[in-house]
Formats: sequence, C-alpha cells, structure tokens
Amino acid sequence: MTEKAQTKDISVPKTMKAWVLGDPEELRLVEKPVPEPGPAEVLLHVDAVAICGTDVEILTKGLPAWIQGGLPFNKNFTPGHEYMGTVVKLGAGVDEYALGDRVAVEVHAGCGRCERCRMGMYTSCLNYGLNYGEHNKGHRANGFTTDGGFAEYAVNHVNTLIHIPDEMSDEEATLIVTAGTATYGLDALGGLIAGESLVVTGPGPIGLMSVAVGKALGAQPVILTGTRDARLNMGIRLGADHVINVRKEDPVEAVKRITGSKGVHYVMECSGAPNALNEAMDMVNRGGRICLAAFPGEPVPVDLAKLVRNNIYVYGIRGEGKSASRRAAALMIQKRFDAKIIHTHTFSLEELPTAFKYARERIEGAIKVVLRVS
Amino acid sequence: MTEKAQTKDISVPKTMKAWVLGDPEELRLVEKPVPEPGPAEVLLHVDAVAICGTDVEILTKGLPAWIQGGLPFNKNFTPGHEYMGTVVKLGAGVDEYALGDRVAVEVHAGCGRCERCRMGMYTSCLNYGLNYGEHNKGHRANGFTTDGGFAEYAVNHVNTLIHIPDEMSDEEATLIVTAGTATYGLDALGGLIAGESLVVTGPGPIGLMSVAVGKALGAQPVILTGTRDARLNMGIRLGADHVINVRKEDPVEAVKRITGSKGVHYVMECSGAPNALNEAMDMVNRGGRICLAAFPGEPVPVDLAKLVRNNIYVYGIRGEGKSASRRAAALMIQKRFDAKIIHTHTFSLEELPTAFKYARERIEGAIKVVLRVS
Amino acid sequence: MTEKAQTKDISVPKTMKAWVLGDPEELRLVEKPVPEPGPAEVLLHVDAVAICGTDVEILTKGLPAWIQGGLPFNKNFTPGHEYMGTVVKLGAGVDEYALGDRVAVEVHAGCGRCERCRMGMYTSCLNYGLNYGEHNKGHRANGFTTDGGFAEYAVNHVNTLIHIPDEMSDEEATLIVTAGTATYGLDALGGLIAGESLVVTGPGPIGLMSVAVGKALGAQPVILTGTRDARLNMGIRLGADHVINVRKEDPVEAVKRITGSKGVHYVMECSGAPNALNEAMDMVNRGGRICLAAFPGEPVPVDLAKLVRNNIYVYGIRGEGKSASRRAAALMIQKRFDAKIIHTHTFSLEELPTAFKYARERIEGAIKVVLRVS
Amino acid sequence: MTEKAQTKDISVPKTMKAWVLGDPEELRLVEKPVPEPGPAEVLLHVDAVAICGTDVEILTKGLPAWIQGGLPFNKNFTPGHEYMGTVVKLGAGVDEYALGDRVAVEVHAGCGRCERCRMGMYTSCLNYGLNYGEHNKGHRANGFTTDGGFAEYAVNHVNTLIHIPDEMSDEEATLIVTAGTATYGLDALGGLIAGESLVVTGPGPIGLMSVAVGKALGAQPVILTGTRDARLNMGIRLGADHVINVRKEDPVEAVKRITGSKGVHYVMECSGAPNALNEAMDMVNRGGRICLAAFPGEPVPVDLAKLVRNNIYVYGIRGEGKSASRRAAALMIQKRFDAKIIHTHTFSLEELPTAFKYARERIEGAIKVVLRVS
Repeated sequence: MTEKAQTKDISVPKTMKAWVLGDPEELRLVEKPVPEPGPAEVLLHVDAVAICGTDVEILTKGLPAWIQGGLPFNKNFTPGHEYMGTVVKLGAGVDEYALGDRVAVEVHAGCGRCERCRMGMYTSCLNYGLNYGEHNKGHRANGFTTDGGFAEYAVNHVNTLIHIPDEMSDEEATLIVTAGTATYGLDALGGLIAGESLVVTGPGPIGLMSVAVGKALGAQPVILTGTRDARLNMGIRLGADHVINVRKEDPVEAVKRITGSKGVHYVMECSGAPNALNEAMDMVNRGGRICLAAFPGEPVPVDLAKLVRNNIYVYGIRGEGKSASRRAAALMIQKRFDAKIIHTHTFSLEELPTAFKYARERIEGAIKVVLRVS
Repeated sequence: MTEKAQTKDISVPKTMKAWVLGDPEELRLVEKPVPEPGPAEVLLHVDAVAICGTDVEILTKGLPAWIQGGLPFNKNFTPGHEYMGTVVKLGAGVDEYALGDRVAVEVHAGCGRCERCRMGMYTSCLNYGLNYGEHNKGHRANGFTTDGGFAEYAVNHVNTLIHIPDEMSDEEATLIVTAGTATYGLDALGGLIAGESLVVTGPGPIGLMSVAVGKALGAQPVILTGTRDARLNMGIRLGADHVINVRKEDPVEAVKRITGSKGVHYVMECSGAPNALNEAMDMVNRGGRICLAAFPGEPVPVDLAKLVRNNIYVYGIRGEGKSASRRAAALMIQKRFDAKIIHTHTFSLEELPTAFKYARERIEGAIKVVLRVS
Repeated sequence: MTEKAQTKDISVPKTMKAWVLGDPEELRLVEKPVPEPGPAEVLLHVDAVAICGTDVEILTKGLPAWIQGGLPFNKNFTPGHEYMGTVVKLGAGVDEYALGDRVAVEVHAGCGRCERCRMGMYTSCLNYGLNYGEHNKGHRANGFTTDGGFAEYAVNHVNTLIHIPDEMSDEEATLIVTAGTATYGLDALGGLIAGESLVVTGPGPIGLMSVAVGKALGAQPVILTGTRDARLNMGIRLGADHVINVRKEDPVEAVKRITGSKGVHYVMECSGAPNALNEAMDMVNRGGRICLAAFPGEPVPVDLAKLVRNNIYVYGIRGEGKSASRRAAALMIQKRFDAKIIHTHTFSLEELPTAFKYARERIEGAIKVVLRVS
Repeated sequence: MTEKAQTKDISVPKTMKAWVLGDPEELRLVEKPVPEPGPAEVLLHVDAVAICGTDVEILTKGLPAWIQGGLPFNKNFTPGHEYMGTVVKLGAGVDEYALGDRVAVEVHAGCGRCERCRMGMYTSCLNYGLNYGEHNKGHRANGFTTDGGFAEYAVNHVNTLIHIPDEMSDEEATLIVTAGTATYGLDALGGLIAGESLVVTGPGPIGLMSVAVGKALGAQPVILTGTRDARLNMGIRLGADHVINVRKEDPVEAVKRITGSKGVHYVMECSGAPNALNEAMDMVNRGGRICLAAFPGEPVPVDLAKLVRNNIYVYGIRGEGKSASRRAAALMIQKRFDAKIIHTHTFSLEELPTAFKYARERIEGAIKVVLRVS
C-alpha cells in the first residue's frame, strides 16, 4: 500500500457488462449496475477470470444442490469465482488495500461469527448463503451466493483478497485459488510433509496443483496417477517424481513397486473415480492419511474395515480454508512451480460461451480456460 | 515403586496352566512352561482377564485375516488380551515397576523403530507381527502375535503396563483397555472436547466407554444411539445426556431435534452398522468429525460427496495408541465414571468355555465377562 | 432461543446509570445514554459484574500502557469487563440470541479480518483498539476499548456471548471469563491433559480456576503452590491433589518429592513472582511445558539455557481466546467444579467504590467481589 | 537396500584408530577395539565427521554439565557426533539397512520407552545417559554418552540412520544433522510456514541452515541478522530475502521497516546473545512464536510481560527430534539448498587437533570443518 496508490483517482462507471444465468444452459450478457462496496469490502475491476468445473455444472444444472435453501439469485445471477483484478474503490474502514492494487480473490468470505469461521475454516461457514435481508450474517461466496467474476466489476470482502506482484500475470493469478485448494488439502494431511511420500490421483487442475504444491513443500517422492499421458507429462513438469498411467498399470501395484512395498504416507484424491478411495486405502501405509478433494456422483462401496484396521484418516475438504490460497500465492510468487502450465486457452469476456465450450469439451486439450476482461 | 516391594521375593513355578487354540472352536487347557521376561519386559501373574469380541472371533475363525503372514503360533497359541496382573519377575534394566506391583496391560508393544511407533502410534506399528527369529523387530501384540492372558502367567513389555492403585479391583482394571480405545478415538477427534457435542453410535463396550470418557472430558451434550433400552440405560448411568433407541426414532432426526438442527461436532461410530457412516455424516455439522471404532463386515455404499462438501474428517482407529489407556486409567482412578457397570459376569480361568458362551450369546445380558485367575 | 422469548417486549430506557473514569482514582456515577446495538450486536442489561485486578489497575493508572495509541475514551469511559446480563435488544441479523436470554460475556470481540482472529486467537487481534472512525475494523474489548459493565446497560458483539442456564446464578456467571482464561492456558499447554501432571503457581482467581479446570479435564496430580493457607485450602476444595505453602517448603523440592523426582508435565504460572519462571523450569520434566498467565512488573533474570537444554515450551497467554470461555462455561454448567467458592463479597452498582476497596485491600479475605445491578 | 549390497562381504578389522579424551584440552589418538553392533544396531565405517561447537566445549570443559550423573566414560571416551559413513556390519534383526549403504547419523537414539521417546521427542529422552549396566534403558547419544565419530568405526542404532544417495558427497552428508536442528525448530514453530515471515537471528551453522530450510519450506520473507557481512552474504546465497547487520542498524527497527511495521510471524533465535529474546519479542507480531536454538551462558533479564501481553510462545529445542534430520536430508537430496556453502575446511582424521584449532579460532573464516576418514 503506497500513498501514491491510495490517492490516485480511479473512475468507475455506473453500469457494467456482466453475464447472468437464465434457464439451464442459458447465459446472457447484460448491462448491470456496478455494485457498491460496504464496510470491509472493496470494488474490483475484474481483469481475468478462469473457468472451473463447478462453473460448468452451475451452467448446466443451476446452482449445486448443496447450496441449501431458496436463495435469492439464480435468475440474473452472475457466476464466476476464479478471478483476479484491480482495486478501484474502498469500502469503509479498509486500509489493507489501496486503489490500484492488483489482487487475487478467494471464493469464500465466511460470516466471522460461527465456530468454523473462528477456526479459520471459513469455507465450512455454518451461515453459508446467509447474506440477505434479516438473515444477513455477512457470509459471501463469490459466484455462488453473491455475484461473481464473469463481469467487469465485483465486490469482495477484504478477507478474500491476496496481494499479487507486478511480475505475476493476470492469467497466472487466476490459478491461485486452484493451488489454494491443493494447499488446503496438504495442510489437512499434515502440513509439514517435507520428506514424506505423496500420491496424487487424478491429473485435473487440482490434482496437478497438488503435485506442484506437494513438491514445493518437499514431499518425496510425489507420484501422479491418471489416464492421459499428456496430463501426466504436465505432472512431471510440475514436479512429479513418478507418473502412473492407470490404463497401462494397476496403480496400487505401481505404488507398491515404487515404494518398495511400503506404500505412501499420503494420498490426495482428485479423480472422483468410484473406486478411488478403496485404492487409496491400499496405497497408504498403516497410519496413513487420505484427502478427498473430489468425489463420485453417487454413493460407492467402501471397505471401511481397512480404515479401522489400518488407522487411516480421511479428510474431506471443501474449497480452500485456513488462508491456504495466501500460502499458495506465496509459493507462486517465489516461483516454486509454474502454475501457468495448466493455463491453456484465453478468450475475452464477451467470448464466455466459446470459452465454456472449450472447457467442457476439453477442446485442444483445454485445462484452464481464462477470460481476459478489458 | 517402593524399596519394600522391590526386595520381596515372589516365587514363580516352572509351569503354568494356559488355554491354547487348536482347530477352529477348539480350546484346550494345558500345562505350559512359564515364560521368561527379556530386557525391558516383566513377567506378570495374570489376576483377571476379560473377553473381547475379537477373542470370540479368534476362537471361531483363527486369527483375524489382517494379521499378515504365516506367523508361528496358531496351534498351541494362547489368546486373551484384556488382562491385568501382578509383577512377579523383572527383565534386565527394568526399574519402572517393582515386584508386587499391580498393573493393567495394553495390547500393543510396538517395535519402537518404525515411524508410526516413533509418533506414539504403536498400534499402527509397521513391523506388526515381527517378533520372531531373524525378523525380530521387537513388536508384540498380546494375545494376537504373542501368547496372551488366558493363562496363569504372561510376559509383557514395560511400555504396555499401567500402574493401578489398591482401591481398583482386578475386574475393573481389565476394562482399562476398552476405555483406552474410547480415549484414543476422542483424542483423534480433537482431544479438548469440553463443551462440544458428541454422538456415540452403538452401545457395545467401546461405545459405552466412549460415552463415559467423552462425558468425563466435558463433552456436552453426549448422545447415545442403540437398539436395546437396557444398554441405553447403562449409557445414561455412564453420563449420556440423551439416548436414542433407533428402533423407535430415526437417529439423524433425533440428533437434529436435540441439537436444534445444528448437528453435533463429533460422532464416535461404535456399531459397525452398514449405514452408520452415512448417518454420521448427516449428524455432524459442516466441518465435523467422525471416528470409526467399528466397521461392517463388507464394503458398504458411502456417499463420499458429503465428506467433501461438508469438509468432514473421518478417523479410523486401530486399538489404543498414544498412551490412551494410561489416560483412561487416570480417569478411572479419579472415579470420573464407573466402568464396572459394563462388567456383568465373572468366571474362573478353568471356566473359559462357559465364559465364552456367555459372551457370545449375551446370556443374561452379558457385556463384559471376566475370568479371575487364582 | 424460544419463540416465546423472542416475541416478548422488553422496554429499555433512554438513559442509564454508569460509572465513568476521570483522573486517576476518580470514578463518577453519571447518567449516560443507553447505547444502540449495531449489526451482529445485542444490548444487554447488566445483571452482575465482578471486579478484576486489571480494573483496579485501570482505576489507579488509567488504561494499561499496552493499550496502544491515543484512543478516544479515558475520560468518561466506563470500565468493567467481567459481567453478565440479559439480552434486551437485538442488532441487525442477530438470531443466535433472543430477548430475555441470560448470557455471560467474553471481553474480546476481534476484528474478524486479521490473521489472528481468523485462527480463533481473537484476544491477540492485530487490530486491537481499532473500532472508531475511519479506522474502524470492528475490534472491541469490553471495558478496555469500548464501554464496559460498570453500568446498567452494555452493547456486545454476538461473538462474545455465552448462553447460561436458569440454574446458574448471576454471580457465578461473572466468573466464567476467569475460568475461561484458565481454560485457554490449558488448551495452549496441550488440551488433552487427562492423566498428566500439573502444577499451578499462585492461588489468585486465575490460579484457583486453573486448578479447577485442570482437575475437571482429568489432570493428575494437580499441585497448587502459594503463600496463604486459606487460599490453598480453597484450591483443595476446587480439586488440588496437593498444596505447597512456599513459606514452609521449597516448591521445587516439594514438586520433586510429590512426583518421585520426575517433575510434572505442565506448569500454569499465575503468580507473577520474579523467580516463578525459573522455578517452573525446574518443576517440569524434560520436554515439559509452561504457561504464563501472569508476569512480574519488570524484566527478571531467566536462565534460558534450561529452556533449550530441556526442550521446554513457554506459552504466554493474553486473555481467553479459542472459545475457551464457552468451554469453561460448559464445565461449570455441568457442575464439574464450584467456581462460586472464589466469590466472596457482593455489593450494589452504586457501591462500586467500596467494592473496589474490598478487592484492592483484600478486606475479609476478598477474592472475587461482585456488583449486582438492579 | 539391494540383494547385491546385502550379500557383499565387508571385512572389518579387530582394532581401529580413535581419538579419546583425557584431561581438559587433552585428545589422544589411540588404537581401540572395533565395537560390535547389538540388536537393532549397525556398525559403520566413519567416512566423514564435522566439528560442532559442542565438540569444542567438550574438549575444553569435559562433557557438558547438563549430562547428568557420573557416567562411565570421560577418560578414554571418543567424542564426535556429526558424522556419516558406510554400513559394514548388521546387528540382529536389522534389514532396514544393507552392507555398503551410505548413511548419515542423528545424534540421539532414545530409550523408546519413556513418554518423550514415544512422542517422537527422543532428544528429550527421560532416560538420557542410561545405557550402561543394570540401568541400561537403551538410550544412546553418539559422542555424548556413547563413543562417537572421531574414529574409524562407530556403532549406531537403526533409529539414528538416514539413507543418502550416491550423488551426495560425504562432506555434505555430515551437515544433515545441523539442517535437522533447524528443521526441528521450524517444526516446533508451526511446520507449515509457507507464506509466513521468519527472522533468523545469528548466522552460525544452525542459523544459516534455518535460513535455508525456512526458505525451502516457503517462508516469505526470510530475514537474517548478524554482525559479519561474510556470514550474512552466505545467508543470501542460502535464500535470505533480507539481511541486517546489527552493527549498522538496529535489528528491531530494521524488521519493522522491512515488514511495514507488522513484525514477523516467527523468530529462530540462533545467536545466544543476552538480549536476543527481548529483541525477538519486539520483532514478532501479537500471537507470534519464537524458537530458541541457542542461549546465553548466564541468566539474562527478560521482559516476561511482553510474552503474556502479546500471547507469544517460546520453544526451547534440544537437538533434532521428530525425524527432523530425515526431513532435512530429503530437502538436501532434492537440492532445495546448497548446504555445502557452510563447509569451509577439510582435514584427515589424524589432523583433528588442527581441525579443532580452525573451528575454534575461525581461521580463514572457518564455519564447518570436516574430517575425512580413510
């Protein structure tokens, strides 16, 4: 925060372009009022926003079933939660950020008054969705319960912001939240994982970032499993010591082979495959730990006996709490890994439908598709 | 340890009575040599030994499948792992205990050299079963991989022993390990649980002890679920604030009712029922934690999505590590709960087959059946 | 929260009686406007308020030097931070509490946006004192940076409130915060202290509550040191297994005697004596831990070599974070100890100067002096 | 461990060259019997051994005062504890290592039966020094209570060994224990320190390794203080973001300047300067943490009030527990920092007196002086 930055005047228009949801599969680009930041909030000009698998799901099915209650948005709601931008207006009491600051944005601003928020578990806020009318507890989840980043401007609570340096590109900054989810999972698994062994199952964006963050924190070896060699090769570039193509080799056998039958300390499950947890239980050693960052669409058979007999802990994680995104950003600022590897395509804000198409259909091997907002 | 105790001479015979396994369902009372304690070990005269569900399983099926490898016992092996006794001989280097000391016994003496043992997770010893011949890593699991307590004498590593005072009866002391398992689970769930809410599912011995230890540590409310009112009433005597007979009321609904729809912080799953984990996920609030101390015999459908969406952690626990039994003993010595409530029947060592029959068939409402050894 | 409670109408006057600070030693009873609760706040009718050593210090010296900056109160400021009362008005968005609810009050409402608040360490809020004007970060410390409880009414953030049941008297409820400080210290020391040994040095209110909470959580043995037998006897009534009058016996020698030369796991230092930390380092075993809840007025010689050579951890604690007061209240609601033992005198709000005199001069053995507010 | 390695025959002589202590300042090179490895032990050929400040102290004053009791060595005792070597003989039950394996060595093999060892705090073993005669609890501290590494051969417990790869030089491997101490301190401070700020005070070997490990784990910024620019420059090469020469600038002021008045999360105190702890308390923010890895020779005035008012935790660390050296080795194997920077001089075993002279008098800027043993 520099004095210079604080005093410079940034003009903000009255209205802005924003994409809004209609019926399933219906997205419209409209002109909306630019929102006002309240106390402890800032207004951002969105500079770039990435598309997440959840965005695709929201477009298809409406908001996820697990957003409880009849929340007052849906129609005319602006999704988009992996964005970054520039601070253009400060709400009351904000001096942690200055006009002109470039920031990445976490999804969740918890209510700050439930017991989970007070433990730093703000993605597990017990007042999720309550930021309207008489039930306003101050919770916000960008692009889920409050308007998000597929727009020119967005309001954000200061708790969700992370300073980024000039050297980091807008596109790279949109990836911080994904790396933050990986970091949150590795924190749950133990935090200090240097010198311990890690399997990551599933080379999607979170899986690939789990490889990168796990290696940055010193895990050894880091083993990545998946079905596509192109993705596995990205894993190698991000730090994987071994990759296993599960179409060619049984992953449990391969992990045993690589570890001299010992198994690993930790598994980050990022595939959502129906048998992934059972396989993970066979990959970890007795006393090992498994983080679930993905899940199958339906209940699946799990051999719970193995959890008990082998004293295994399983950590479901919801998003990225405990300032994990700030840690992830710090690693990226220190250039511990090149997150940009997973950024494959760029479009303009106006091209959102095309961008969605690329992301959904994995056209040209798309992983992270980013919109630049001018 | 008193000077008087140390110098008194305790005569030990050359041979002893001991029950040994033969074929499935075959138990024979034989005369065996009294074993010698090695360095860091003591010889105990077994004074009392309780029957555990696992003992029944061993009698029926041989040693559990999860005891890996072709271990050199089976025939002529003496089971029994919930016992206490009197120190009658000291191995080299032992001065933590004196002749005449009364002690309770934990099941597991880890190898002390694997990484789990060095974290205090000795029930998850990576050298489980390796205490023979050239692979001797020093691991011992009384009544599982080394001769146990259905005998007049037994050798034990000092790490497994817990001093008990004169005021505690032999029978009560046999229950320390069961309370230790409950304590280990509550440690995994958070340790400092005072003022937090706890559901215990399944009023077997571990479930009932979980109620008792949870309440002793200040959990509030403690809710017990089960199918039999007699057991639930025992739960109330051990400290449960609410009991739910699942034959009469849906347990998830009941938990919501009792907690004003908030759910609880923790569930200790001690029933092994096929749907217990799914129900537990509906009982805990977002960010809650579940300990599995029991499990169904086969893989069961689990809705993993709930673990991820609600940031739930699941802790499988194997036996009782991290000195949990010493903590449990300390609570019992301080009379924080009356564990003797779950002790229902007493027999002599010679009556083991009858005792087994009572335990298996729950004759006269049998819970903990204890043998006194003279 | 009952529907009945919520709908009942509680009339609140425009002005109230309140004590305010003037020059050192000057306290005046004035008529002040009753404050209005903002969002996430409630207005309480103060029913009872206890006097703390810090109140005496504030009266004598003005606000403690460690409240940084020229904060806008001092003159006309109302101190008092150990109070309880009845909810009489709800701010916007409050449904956690209802009109008519009886509540105890924690001192600190953190800003909710600094990293300490987000870890639950709200007493270490990095925005301490910033709840005015353009720097309003929402931090409040009742009776320190915002008007406190020596008055008929007081505004409080919902985060600081704790429900109390009808069975608990107003006077007892004022002691919750003191027990909360003890609980916060024991949480820092390890949380799960059942079966571990604890020395408490100094039988003031926090020391005595540390004995009570330590024993309630299962510590064994609990040893209390002090200079006055009357206070030590209170310690015994609150659960101490041993007391040491340091005028009659060297406390380090006594601890060695009681523990068979082993020393203890934990020391809660509540005396502020100049040599207390050095003695505590000799009381704990290698790897032991010490909590400082009190301190000498000036720098004192400390033998730091012992900390390093014996791997000792020292935890300074500021007030009562991590919901410690809620845990303490839960133990008191469960009647795990009788905090009322330390409540010795009662006065009316109007008698505050006399009450202060009793507290300062320990007239008639005064420990906790409570004002009832009608 | 390869089959080939295991079966190769390594001939071991009956006697060996070893340095032994006599009177203060007296070191003699003698011919001693090569020791035999017991169960769970191996015999190493020492390949390289570094000189530590404690070695110099032992030479000058005899064994440190804090090695309690009249232990049976002193005269004819071989010091040296920072060594590495090759496995040449296996004790009973050892298959974790094979003949020919190159290994680094931790100092402490705890007894494995006290409560500290069972928590992984084996450097705080409560049976320290008890590995002789009737009190043999199995504790060993190489070069402190059992013969160490200024010799051709040394016996070691398997718990103290760490595999090292061919690519790592002997000299670098001797530095693992120093990096392990730094890692143990950073584990005490929080473990997951990525993105958090760290001051290291004192650029001795442990301070420099704290910079390196802190940066490898992602701390940001890492600030090093010291008096000599040459050492500070080494700090920069090892990853320090800022260095402060305390002869030129007040270190507390400098830390405030660098952190925008916020202070840092953590201080690793590695200087032993009399005022270092007081300064560290002014460097950390409220709720910050300080690790003491060094200490002044005498009691020093400490302003304990700051610890309490600012909720600061202070962690004394003794050596390197909780497998910290294995983690440090893993980081070095992954080439996260170049520990060799602090290795300045090499001598032969026979030149130990000269090597000591270099280390004591810091001749030619000596930091780590290593002996190669042929």
